[in-house]
Amino acid sequence: MDYNVKVHDKSGTRSLKAGAGINLLDFLRMNSVDVDTPCSGKGTCGKCKVRVQGLMEEASEKEMKLLGKNALENGYRLACYNKITSDIEVYVDSDAGEAKIATGAKEREVEHCPIISKRFVKLKAPDIEDQASDIERVTACSGGFDMPEDIALIRTLPHVLRNSDFAVTCGYMDDKLIFVEPGDTTQKLYGIAVDIGTTTVAAYLLDLNTGKKRDVYSLLNPQRKYGADVLSRIDYTVSCPTGLDEMNELIISCVNEAASVFCSRGNLAREDIYAVVLVGNTTMMHFLMKIPANNIAAAPFIPGTTRMHKFRARDMGIEINPFGYAVMFPCVSAYIGADTVAAVLSSGMYENDGISLLIDIGTNGEIVLGGRDWLYSCSTAAGPAFEGANIRNGVGGVKGAIDKLDFAGGFSYTTIGDSKAIGICGSGIVDAIAGMLSVGVIDETGRIVDEDDEIYSQLHESIRERLVDIDGMKAFLIAKAEECASPIDIAITQKDVRELQNAKAAIAAGIKVLVKEAGIKMEDVDRVYLAGGFGSYINIASALKIGLLPAELEGRVESIGNAAGAGAIEGIVSSVMLAKADEIRSRIKYIELSAKPEFVDEYVECMMFE
Amino acid sequence: MDYNVKVHDKSGTRSLKAGAGINLLDFLRMNSVDVDTPCSGKGTCGKCKVRVQGLMEEASEKEMKLLGKNALENGYRLACYNKITSDIEVYVDSDAGEAKIATGAKEREVEHCPIISKRFVKLKAPDIEDQASDIERVTACSGGFDMPEDIALIRTLPHVLRNSDFAVTCGYMDDKLIFVEPGDTTQKLYGIAVDIGTTTVAAYLLDLNTGKKRDVYSLLNPQRKYGADVLSRIDYTVSCPTGLDEMNELIISCVNEAASVFCSRGNLAREDIYAVVLVGNTTMMHFLMKIPANNIAAAPFIPGTTRMHKFRARDMGIEINPFGYAVMFPCVSAYIGADTVAAVLSSGMYENDGISLLIDIGTNGEIVLGGRDWLYSCSTAAGPAFEGANIRNGVGGVKGAIDKLDFAGGFSYTTIGDSKAIGICGSGIVDAIAGMLSVGVIDETGRIVDEDDEIYSQLHESIRERLVDIDGMKAFLIAKAEECASPIDIAITQKDVRELQNAKAAIAAGIKVLVKEAGIKMEDVDRVYLAGGFGSYINIASALKIGLLPAELEGRVESIGNAAGAGAIEGIVSSVMLAKADEIRSRIKYIELSAKPEFVDEYVECMMFE
Repeated sequence: MDYNVKVHDKSGTRSLKAGAGINLLDFLRMNSVDVDTPCSGKGTCGKCKVRVQGLMEEASEKEMKLLGKNALENGYRLACYNKITSDIEVYVDSDAGEAKIATGAKEREVEHCPIISKRFVKLKAPDIEDQASDIERVTACSGGFDMPEDIALIRTLPHVLRNSDFAVTCGYMDDKLIFVEPGDTTQKLYGIAVDIGTTTVAAYLLDLNTGKKRDVYSLLNPQRKYGADVLSRIDYTVSCPTGLDEMNELIISCVNEAASVFCSRGNLAREDIYAVVLVGNTTMMHFLMKIPANNIAAAPFIPGTTRMHKFRARDMGIEINPFGYAVMFPCVSAYIGADTVAAVLSSGMYENDGISLLIDIGTNGEIVLGGRDWLYSCSTAAGPAFEGANIRNGVGGVKGAIDKLDFAGGFSYTTIGDSKAIGICGSGIVDAIAGMLSVGVIDETGRIVDEDDEIYSQLHESIRERLVDIDGMKAFLIAKAEECASPIDIAITQKDVRELQNAKAAIAAGIKVLVKEAGIKMEDVDRVYLAGGFGSYINIASALKIGLLPAELEGRVESIGNAAGAGAIEGIVSSVMLAKADEIRSRIKYIELSAKPEFVDEYVECMMFE
Repeated sequence: MDYNVKVHDKSGTRSLKAGAGINLLDFLRMNSVDVDTPCSGKGTCGKCKVRVQGLMEEASEKEMKLLGKNALENGYRLACYNKITSDIEVYVDSDAGEAKIATGAKEREVEHCPIISKRFVKLKAPDIEDQASDIERVTACSGGFDMPEDIALIRTLPHVLRNSDFAVTCGYMDDKLIFVEPGDTTQKLYGIAVDIGTTTVAAYLLDLNTGKKRDVYSLLNPQRKYGADVLSRIDYTVSCPTGLDEMNELIISCVNEAASVFCSRGNLAREDIYAVVLVGNTTMMHFLMKIPANNIAAAPFIPGTTRMHKFRARDMGIEINPFGYAVMFPCVSAYIGADTVAAVLSSGMYENDGISLLIDIGTNGEIVLGGRDWLYSCSTAAGPAFEGANIRNGVGGVKGAIDKLDFAGGFSYTTIGDSKAIGICGSGIVDAIAGMLSVGVIDETGRIVDEDDEIYSQLHESIRERLVDIDGMKAFLIAKAEECASPIDIAITQKDVRELQNAKAAIAAGIKVLVKEAGIKMEDVDRVYLAGGFGSYINIASALKIGLLPAELEGRVESIGNAAGAGAIEGIVSSVMLAKADEIRSRIKYIELSAKPEFVDEYVECMMFE
């Protein structure tokens, strides 16, 4: 028996039929309704909230706990916990597509020598005295650059040469002649640099003739529906026989979407785009290439490949010029990916005087330390707290997310897009914890004070009244339900503080182990680069306050935005930089923290607030 | 309205429906009935004879002339001239699949170093102290041999390594690691060498571990239905938009058929075959690779490629191991193909002392002259007379073909397979002309004598009675209708003599021009190699008698069989020989006869019989 389900989401209202007893989340996914599911539907994150009108089964204790009494009373349910057992209406407040994605970055001037170049040549037409074959004719004019063994390319030659009276444009990459086109097409030479984040995808259109950025496009990674973190997604590729194919198609579709948007906005043809340079973490690089990533997930954490690869884009399903190339930046290890290599490149730290520390904080914190002479790296599992997952009211950096808090000049907050608050994102959480520490709401162990504590009475009235109990847990109220988009209080609970302590301890301990490994002192670090979306928005003072960054680094910290994207851009407009990326990859020494007993000691120590 | 057509051919009897008015040849082709059509259905060759029962339109004058009164009276019609306008029965005496294909050859001992080799290695399993990626782990054990940029290959690595506890078999070609398989598979390593002739295809299965030939399979080239010669087939690829695809599929299907037969006869899996080495004329090589061959057909005769190519077999649709390779032997020019390069290789002439002359006679005569120091080549359009086309009763080297004639000991002939005669093949035609010359039936100009000639009365009675008139033309009767499989007289007509004069003059003139070009004398030629099917069966004395081979070469001529196939075999069992093939290709200087005015003079002179 089928039930009628009316779904309201940002795209409008749809009337659908649902088989009796089908899981609501499965049903919404099947119908391509975008619901936030960081835990991939395992019932642990409490993020797949939808408002339901109509008869539903009673909420289980677990669902109730994750959702909170308040939300439940207001008709919210967690899609993953519920079955469809009657006609219902479902309201989905999805944030998808409205994320604030960091696409800006500190950019360097790099030598302009794009990875693909073109040359227009007028070949001598053959005659009975000069019967060289077509392939010899075009390669002869290419200064020793030969053609790769590409049967599709050779097949085009006879027509291309004769359709243009032997006046053709040759395309080169590295030491190869990679395409031949009729006529003079040298004016058209575009490339796309793409940074594939676990959460967000940022794409940049480059005019390779000038090296200039022409357009930017960003979107959320559609793989999110299989979990916020790479491990959930790898799990899916292991448990579902078509999982890897799906993961691959989802991410390739993002690249194709970016190409399509660039073409329509820039009035280009797909054929005008000849190269895509891709960076991302090691798992994303595997998904892009459809290489099984299973062994990245479990010790001893072995990637299929960490190399730089250059494939015909068509062999990867990327829809640009059929003879265009997709270049995969190299990775260092299972958890130091191509994005980190790209960030090291664009930061310039690999050639800097002195010692730099680069930190990219996400679900994992990738940390690189060093300079001209040596480079060490490690990766530490911070968990997705900084991305809003595992935090009661945590959200990504989307419209309506509380992103900045001020405890100093009377308690206040701002939201992304100045919208009504829908939750709190990473930078907001760091501000909140820093503020709570400053005013004494949490002690150095991370415990939220209660009436029995001496300090309680000294708290300002406006702060004290925010100390509440939510679903049986101590919490600090950030925004009352009436100020919010949904009628749900936004607060930091004791559990949230613990999550953040874990996360910051992981990063801080990683930094300390790396510094030790390099045989230097924290004071020797000359500059700190915060890379990535989180690094762009975080309040550095708050990060130092909570001990996410060691206090010794104060005054040396700088946000460099989407450094991975900037590195990808450098790698497409300059083959010299692309070669440097490969050199950086081989120079970076990877330290496996799980093999370092001292990491655990540092981690425990860093759990405390100072 | 549809008519009922009952088709009887060697596969049995089928009852089919035919749309009213459809061309009979088209109908038979559509229903995959194999009819011999050297002219590709243009109505010029008179070979698509079928016997029809039932109402047909009256034969046109052209059809009557091609078919002959006798055949017409016996119910024969030319399929290409007729439409289906009533219910009929069609009897097809196809020779397809019963051809006598020369697969034997003079073979040399060559160094055994197959183009693909295997090595079984037990890799150290990764651990936390050794986190090298899978690709690094397998390439590290390959002595510097790296992996090609093959995304499909990289995708297999994670599972292959772990499904076999890191004990794997690596495959190498040139300086590349081209596949990795679980476990020890070193015992299984097969390759196929294929000689793609315009008429016939010969395939050889090789055990690459021993270098020994394991099986042989030959079949007729199914492209024959689009014409006996390469020009008709190129025409078809130009006039029909899907023609090149079809031509390619037909020939690839032959390779796959051979692989399939070898697997079932040898109890092998497709995966056990790792390499296919292919030789053929330049057009066949283009069709194999699906490269447009248009420009081979018209001056200045430019191939798309003459290079040696090595493609993943799967990229060519060849169904062997998915990581196997297809190696295309190199060509010299539009009309000196990979088969000639392979023949030069296996003949050993490129490293011989003294001067050798290699001749491969087919529709084109390919001629190579030289030795260790230099090699010249030319190609001359002999036309398909030696293959039986354009000859009234000409047939290929099939069962029932008259292949040897003896005028000395009383007139007699033999047929292939000792069957009733169905026609006369190339070697038979040469014998016939030589015999007719010897006994005086034709004079030195090629004219068949008549009663007015002085010599007529001196002819032996048994010969004189064979001088007949066929469809208004002087002719020499070879076999009377009653001796034949079909009730049709088999004879050599005056026109047939002229066809043969043209053909032999072309070859002989080519030889002379080449000798002159090389600055030597005919006497300086130390040995003559006759290659190919025709070369295997021809009576050398007859060839000298008619002047197909200059008289100076008497005593130095040797048939070497399918030298092209032998060269392909050398090229698969020995990478040294494959490299030599490429060297030979670059050493051979090609002489374009159409650019040599002296060729026409020689040609005219060679028309005469001496």
